[in-house]
Amino acid sequence: MIEQLTVLAPGLLGGSVARAARARGAARRIVIWARRPETRAALARQPWCDGVAESAADAAQAAELVVIAAPVDRIVPLAREIAPHLTAGATVTDVGSVKGEIARLGHDAVHGQAYFVGAHPMAGSEKTGWEHASPDLFAARPCFVTPLPATDVGATARVVAFWQSLGSDVTTVEPDRHDEIVAHISHLPQALASTLCAFLSGRDPSWSGFAGGGLRDTTRIAAGDAQLWRAILEQNRAPVLAALAGYQQELEAFRAALADGRFGEVAERLERGKVYRDSFRPRP
Amino acid sequence: MIEQLTVLAPGLLGGSVARAARARGAARRIVIWARRPETRAALARQPWCDGVAESAADAAQAAELVVIAAPVDRIVPLAREIAPHLTAGATVTDVGSVKGEIARLGHDAVHGQAYFVGAHPMAGSEKTGWEHASPDLFAARPCFVTPLPATDVGATARVVAFWQSLGSDVTTVEPDRHDEIVAHISHLPQALASTLCAFLSGRDPSWSGFAGGGLRDTTRIAAGDAQLWRAILEQNRAPVLAALAGYQQELEAFRAALADGRFGEVAERLERGKVYRDSFRPRP
Repeated sequence: MIEQLTVLAPGLLGGSVARAARARGAARRIVIWARRPETRAALARQPWCDGVAESAADAAQAAELVVIAAPVDRIVPLAREIAPHLTAGATVTDVGSVKGEIARLGHDAVHGQAYFVGAHPMAGSEKTGWEHASPDLFAARPCFVTPLPATDVGATARVVAFWQSLGSDVTTVEPDRHDEIVAHISHLPQALASTLCAFLSGRDPSWSGFAGGGLRDTTRIAAGDAQLWRAILEQNRAPVLAALAGYQQELEAFRAALADGRFGEVAERLERGKVYRDSFRPRP
Repeated sequence: MIEQLTVLAPGLLGGSVARAARARGAARRIVIWARRPETRAALARQPWCDGVAESAADAAQAAELVVIAAPVDRIVPLAREIAPHLTAGATVTDVGSVKGEIARLGHDAVHGQAYFVGAHPMAGSEKTGWEHASPDLFAARPCFVTPLPATDVGATARVVAFWQSLGSDVTTVEPDRHDEIVAHISHLPQALASTLCAFLSGRDPSWSGFAGGGLRDTTRIAAGDAQLWRAILEQNRAPVLAALAGYQQELEAFRAALADGRFGEVAERLERGKVYRDSFRPRP
């Protein structure tokens, strides 16, 4: 059991880390810092919060493990801010959706004093905010842990064990490989859902009243926070651009087959998609 | 109450028509025809089936209302097959996802003897087959009824009333307008989900093991039957090609903004999508 777990900047993910840690007995004491005073006041009343600190540095200083749950563009600045205050040998992890830059700069930020091992739990919702946090958010869900070649093996093992203790199904992978994977299976779907909605909004918006389950499900994630996604796409720009370009070729080949009346090829492409989708393991 | 409702070629939708009609008391007698003898034998044992006919013509001959529930490329042939056997003044409707050609040729097929008024309930599932039918499939779901300008007003009213009696939220619209709408809100999302899956299957298929809820929901409909969708896309080719071309422009503009580092524009496009998605009325 972790003596003190500190969660910085809890939203949906950070709040769920704290709730899951409490529910599963993963940490004896849970300390939280949030930027806004009114959020700190509300968090202080939660049963899964043993202490609220006035600054990130204060929250981090006695921690055995720190989880930085801020948006991707705020993670490295927070790591730098807390670095001088960390206990020697403490471990820092995060929940950011992009890992290359965060893993390298996070490692550099705390190196010599503590250990940084990035993580990305593949769990979430289009709903944001710690108010929607759930102790079961990570249960049986994939979680990437992304050590660098230079990362301390013991620190990696501790971070893997922590995410497993919250119920995650952990996979360890290099940060750049992680970024290529999520560019395809998370950021590309987000781009498609958002651009589909943006496109439809420019046609007749009243058509959405006829939406069946297909359009609803296909576009659900387009309701996600635009600024959070902008930061993710900005930070993972090159892998996302590569995935987008590859997908555009696929879509254009499909359109051309339909335009040319090659309906057998249209069916083959649909079938290839169906075989892939049918291969998904059942939702836990 | 309809004296005799006949359902031809019931799959998920046709089976649900019969079950909903029975559950809601919309028809006194329900007669069904299916192409395969083993399906007819199984249907004869269902409590929502009062009679099974050996041919479509036999099933249709005493019907007050016939629902043709076959795939889109089989609807007009079935209308032609039953036309000589219909009671004078009977009404025929269907459940096809494309309406222009079906509305015109269906009208021509039965004209002088009976009335054809096309319909398209926006309900369904990636699961097919009458075994998955539900008496509540149409409840509070949109349903298009698509009369031609030449269609008898009384026949249209009867078809509207029938779909309403199954719980549908009916909208009456011209067939070509219907096809433009569904090209955008149903066939385009299907094309995106299927091509996304086809693209990902050509990368590393094991990545699907990391899929979060976003990829799952975005691609759910890609598991639909490829041959059914091929027939729909073939029949609605021109409107789908127009929708695809418009969407490709939107996607390319998004990609270019990201490639050029215009992150403010990226955020604006994401936000436009979010506003549209947030405007969906809650799922009934």
